[in-house]
Amino acid sequence: MSVSPVGPMSSMAHSHYNNEELGNIMDLMWLPPVLGGCGLVVAFIVYQIVSKYPAGDNLIAEIAAEIHKGAMVFMRREYSILAIFIVVVTILLFIGFRSWQTPLAFVVGALCSGFAGYVGMFSATKANVRTTVAAKEKGAAAALSVAFYGGSVMGLTVASMGLLGLGTLYLIFGGDPTHAEAIHGFGMGASSVALFSRVGGGIYTKSADVGADLVGKVEAGIPEDDPRNPGVIADNVGDNVGDVAGMGSDIFESYCGSMIASIAIASTMTLTSVTQLAADRGDLMFLPLALASLGLICSILGIVIVKFMSAKSPEVALRFGTIGATIIFILSSFFLIAGFEIQSHVWWCVVAGAVGGIVIGLVTEYYTGGKPVQKIAKDGETGPATVMIAGLATGMESVVVPVISIAAIILISSFLLPEGAGVYGVGIGAVGMLSTVGITMAIDAYGPVADNAGGIAEMAGLGEETRKITDGLDEVGNTTAAIGKGFAIGAAGLAALAIIAAFIETVEKNNHGFTLNISDPLVLTGMFLGAIFPFFVSALTMRAVGDAAFDMIKEIRRQFKEIPGLLEGNAKPDTGRCVDIATKAALRRMVLPGVLAVAAPVLIGFILGPKALGGMLGGALICCVLLALTMANAGGAWDNAKKFVEKGNFGGKGSSVHAAAVVGDTVGDPFKDTSGPSMNILINVMAIVSLVIAPLI
Amino acid sequence: MSVSPVGPMSSMAHSHYNNEELGNIMDLMWLPPVLGGCGLVVAFIVYQIVSKYPAGDNLIAEIAAEIHKGAMVFMRREYSILAIFIVVVTILLFIGFRSWQTPLAFVVGALCSGFAGYVGMFSATKANVRTTVAAKEKGAAAALSVAFYGGSVMGLTVASMGLLGLGTLYLIFGGDPTHAEAIHGFGMGASSVALFSRVGGGIYTKSADVGADLVGKVEAGIPEDDPRNPGVIADNVGDNVGDVAGMGSDIFESYCGSMIASIAIASTMTLTSVTQLAADRGDLMFLPLALASLGLICSILGIVIVKFMSAKSPEVALRFGTIGATIIFILSSFFLIAGFEIQSHVWWCVVAGAVGGIVIGLVTEYYTGGKPVQKIAKDGETGPATVMIAGLATGMESVVVPVISIAAIILISSFLLPEGAGVYGVGIGAVGMLSTVGITMAIDAYGPVADNAGGIAEMAGLGEETRKITDGLDEVGNTTAAIGKGFAIGAAGLAALAIIAAFIETVEKNNHGFTLNISDPLVLTGMFLGAIFPFFVSALTMRAVGDAAFDMIKEIRRQFKEIPGLLEGNAKPDTGRCVDIATKAALRRMVLPGVLAVAAPVLIGFILGPKALGGMLGGALICCVLLALTMANAGGAWDNAKKFVEKGNFGGKGSSVHAAAVVGDTVGDPFKDTSGPSMNILINVMAIVSLVIAPLI
Repeated sequence: MSVSPVGPMSSMAHSHYNNEELGNIMDLMWLPPVLGGCGLVVAFIVYQIVSKYPAGDNLIAEIAAEIHKGAMVFMRREYSILAIFIVVVTILLFIGFRSWQTPLAFVVGALCSGFAGYVGMFSATKANVRTTVAAKEKGAAAALSVAFYGGSVMGLTVASMGLLGLGTLYLIFGGDPTHAEAIHGFGMGASSVALFSRVGGGIYTKSADVGADLVGKVEAGIPEDDPRNPGVIADNVGDNVGDVAGMGSDIFESYCGSMIASIAIASTMTLTSVTQLAADRGDLMFLPLALASLGLICSILGIVIVKFMSAKSPEVALRFGTIGATIIFILSSFFLIAGFEIQSHVWWCVVAGAVGGIVIGLVTEYYTGGKPVQKIAKDGETGPATVMIAGLATGMESVVVPVISIAAIILISSFLLPEGAGVYGVGIGAVGMLSTVGITMAIDAYGPVADNAGGIAEMAGLGEETRKITDGLDEVGNTTAAIGKGFAIGAAGLAALAIIAAFIETVEKNNHGFTLNISDPLVLTGMFLGAIFPFFVSALTMRAVGDAAFDMIKEIRRQFKEIPGLLEGNAKPDTGRCVDIATKAALRRMVLPGVLAVAAPVLIGFILGPKALGGMLGGALICCVLLALTMANAGGAWDNAKKFVEKGNFGGKGSSVHAAAVVGDTVGDPFKDTSGPSMNILINVMAIVSLVIAPLI
Repeated sequence: MSVSPVGPMSSMAHSHYNNEELGNIMDLMWLPPVLGGCGLVVAFIVYQIVSKYPAGDNLIAEIAAEIHKGAMVFMRREYSILAIFIVVVTILLFIGFRSWQTPLAFVVGALCSGFAGYVGMFSATKANVRTTVAAKEKGAAAALSVAFYGGSVMGLTVASMGLLGLGTLYLIFGGDPTHAEAIHGFGMGASSVALFSRVGGGIYTKSADVGADLVGKVEAGIPEDDPRNPGVIADNVGDNVGDVAGMGSDIFESYCGSMIASIAIASTMTLTSVTQLAADRGDLMFLPLALASLGLICSILGIVIVKFMSAKSPEVALRFGTIGATIIFILSSFFLIAGFEIQSHVWWCVVAGAVGGIVIGLVTEYYTGGKPVQKIAKDGETGPATVMIAGLATGMESVVVPVISIAAIILISSFLLPEGAGVYGVGIGAVGMLSTVGITMAIDAYGPVADNAGGIAEMAGLGEETRKITDGLDEVGNTTAAIGKGFAIGAAGLAALAIIAAFIETVEKNNHGFTLNISDPLVLTGMFLGAIFPFFVSALTMRAVGDAAFDMIKEIRRQFKEIPGLLEGNAKPDTGRCVDIATKAALRRMVLPGVLAVAAPVLIGFILGPKALGGMLGGALICCVLLALTMANAGGAWDNAKKFVEKGNFGGKGSSVHAAAVVGDTVGDPFKDTSGPSMNILINVMAIVSLVIAPLI
């Protein structure tokens, strides 16, 4: 199945790839965008299935409409601000490059990312209420189906848009050496939109969550999602704009980033390395897209597996679907790689990436669900301070195995592949990890849908029975989401690494003898400067959540005090005000982190030069990965420690241990859903912006 | 005043320095150890002055004796464990090097560090009670004098032992090219003892502090240092073993580390660089010791300044002493450098280091005393969770300016000095920052003495008046200590950087063409692995404090419940048990972090090689500096936010805001006094161990 009859010997005659070399895979190059299109059709069919489920009557429909509207209003306002940013950057790119290719790719990337987020959120806000109704009327299995289908629309859209957008651009520019680098613009568009969405959505969801919980649960003593709580609509809107749309753009950018980086590395690799690995360079460049195409097919298979197994326990179904899809992908990718006549060691990089991802996921599961969680809960016996200390220690300790896994993937790739080609293996490892994004993302998005379904059930007063089913679904979602989160951090780290490698190779191409020696003062300066960003952006986002939550708390307290009859259930809260506080805070506070991430590489690159910029990426990468793991796992551990107490351990709900655990959970909220996840994207934005401007510096 | 008539031209004839080159400064080489000896005499005189102050009668003397005994018992047990470690490492070094020079230097370094810590703590536990008595009988000025003299003994001992130990070794080995590297063993001894002391002392002091405060202040509602609290003696012992002995070893190792690194860099620098900078290599190698000697003299002058000004406000006196000593040092170092006929640009590196240190100190002061502190206190209005979020954000934000300062010092040094010699400038900058350690350390150690004096006053029931004076002294100590802490982090970061540079140069000497290219997979792997250590060690130490505090809380609660009449003041608490809990926890939990830090570079160096080891140091350096700043400043900010509330803001003591602020302070305790400070030493231990084993790999 070799796509190129041009042998290694003939390739060696060319110093860089040319049209002729690529011409032979032209017939396969149509596949990714076509498959992407098909994926979108499947997503649409799944959406149709979701929308055929009953959407409930009066009160339920009203609440669902309010959540849907709140989410859509936020997205519209967010995208209006993003539009300004995109126009400005497009103009700057046009000025910088004096050509239309890179700016165009940037706009396409931004639009694809935005579209994926929008579609995902649209369908999630349709699926949530239908999950509630299904739970009430048909029971757990049906509810799981709707929630999972709702998430699947998102998963499939993310994967399909990536293939469609990137595949089309590759079709246009991939064969044209003078404009191949334009593809990087796609990644820059996707990543910068993702950073804004993640930060904005994260601030929105957590300020609402923290505010609603602290006043509602702790002070007023009413249950979560109680309709009397003025912050509860904002909280449920937040689940969608943060955990669905934000995360969708997040995974989308890692997914595209890993492919773009691998393509870029393949395109600048030395000819010696190319001939050791494959028949020709075109095959190596096309491999990431081919793997992702295969991954999309496997994901659809995985979704079918879940469908057929969902009658049994939901947890088993979800687990089987994910692991099944991954196994099918790994096995079939062996034949794909063999078919391309690419050295089989490259397949081992895929395996290393996938296994590494699973290891990271399992470690995440341990730290956010195992013994450490019970330890944190127990430390609640001596108050919130010891809960905080234990949680922070857990988060910091949790970095050990994942980072060793990342290091092992780097080492394995570089030992397996010929010297200088190791980073290609790292990139392919990241692509391997992310190829089955269609199903992993479906399960990730399933979580907030189930969460929302529970919220609607509570608000509509559907009773214990329904709530129990949605709680069950939610819990399953938490576990699988934890694994997915670990996966995402690992993959994003590898993707960033590959993009940085591509950056270095691109600079090397233009400046012969360019190296990033740590003992070079400029590189070292860059490393220190780069390390600032993850800490500073975390500080900005933590503070944004803290401040918005502070305002939210004041507003909710005010309503409880000033609206007569509210706590007794005789009056309606003014939920719009709370939505407004969260919206404004999110939109105002997302700007600085986003602009910083995009502007910093440009400034450092043009003022201190490529060496400092390379060092900066190195320093930022290390700190982003470590902080992301620390914050995500500490947050997850606190969350589950609280749930552990709520199940009746150490005194259960209402005890002093519970109060202490709630404090931990509240601090963990911005950790795990705002600051932590923005770290992945931050490093990817910085790396891809550097890659885009590499030819200019 | 040139110490060498051998001109640049003649030096160029030699490929490395030789005895002849160094012979001419032999007459000056006696100066550092002699000055060190004189410094010890001055320290002894100051100690005599302290011990002439009245030590109080019955109850006061009894309490003081208990604290003194507790501290001494802990030191003895700590040093017994350290002795085993030192014997083992000495044997391993002897096996590795097959010569006695490096093992000897290691033992000397360990002994000097241990001696400095021991003397400092001995005198601090004499000065504390005398400060109490002076405050009661003679008023604030006399109390300040005693406390400051108590601290000065420590400051002078640290500086003098450094000059005496390192100066003597330099005298023996410095002129002998085959054994010059043995001096690195001194740094390794000093650093590893420091790490154990810092971690052990930090765990001790904070487990006692957290335990005593949480049960005493928050639960039982009795004042701090109340004699009824069973944990109060352990708390006061902790101030001495952690904040005095631990910190003494900490600063001692940075002080010696910066000198050793500069000497090592000068000894391996290319001849071209040497001739551009000075008449001969010997002058450049001797300069760090000469600067430190000058610094000791300036420190003694500074102490005299404080003495003469202490009649005025204590704050002004301390500030004048420190800044005065620094200014005299900077000015006179100009003449010193000119006298050595060293290029004047080197002096600018001293200035850059000193100014950078002051900038970092002022930033620290802002974040731990300015607006951010009031913001944290205000966030207490919405509970402990928002206090935690605000404090963490403050800590993370506080890294920005200090890290930019460090980057600026690197850039300035590398632009001023000829290519390849920039790191020498960085090392000299660190030496410049740390030269006046005699006085900065005196002020640092003054803090815990004043703190202890207050504790004794409270325990002995000396009344409002005395307590007010000691509180005033304590508060002044906090501000100056904050500046000192920032200084220490900056200096340690630069020292580590210089040691790493020396490591790279040493490896280069043995492996020609050795570079640490970030895009090299081995280097990158090392960077990721290195970044694990700061996080993991922080987790270990945080957890140690959390666990020990948990046990302490249980024990104190038990005593309050089971000892009849304790809370009414009719029975005596069993303070020995609490001392025992803290001692055991500290000794047990200090082992793993210390062994990890020493063993990791050896393992990585021998298994993955020097490239991975170099990368590891880079990754660890970045994360250690950033985490150290984050944790120290978040902790300081929480501490002062609590104090701000206790002054009557936002409801004052006993309010819900106060309770929230106490939670912040409690989490901040291990941050700022256990995990944070151990970061500095961790990176220095890893770096110096690498430097020592560099010739072997």
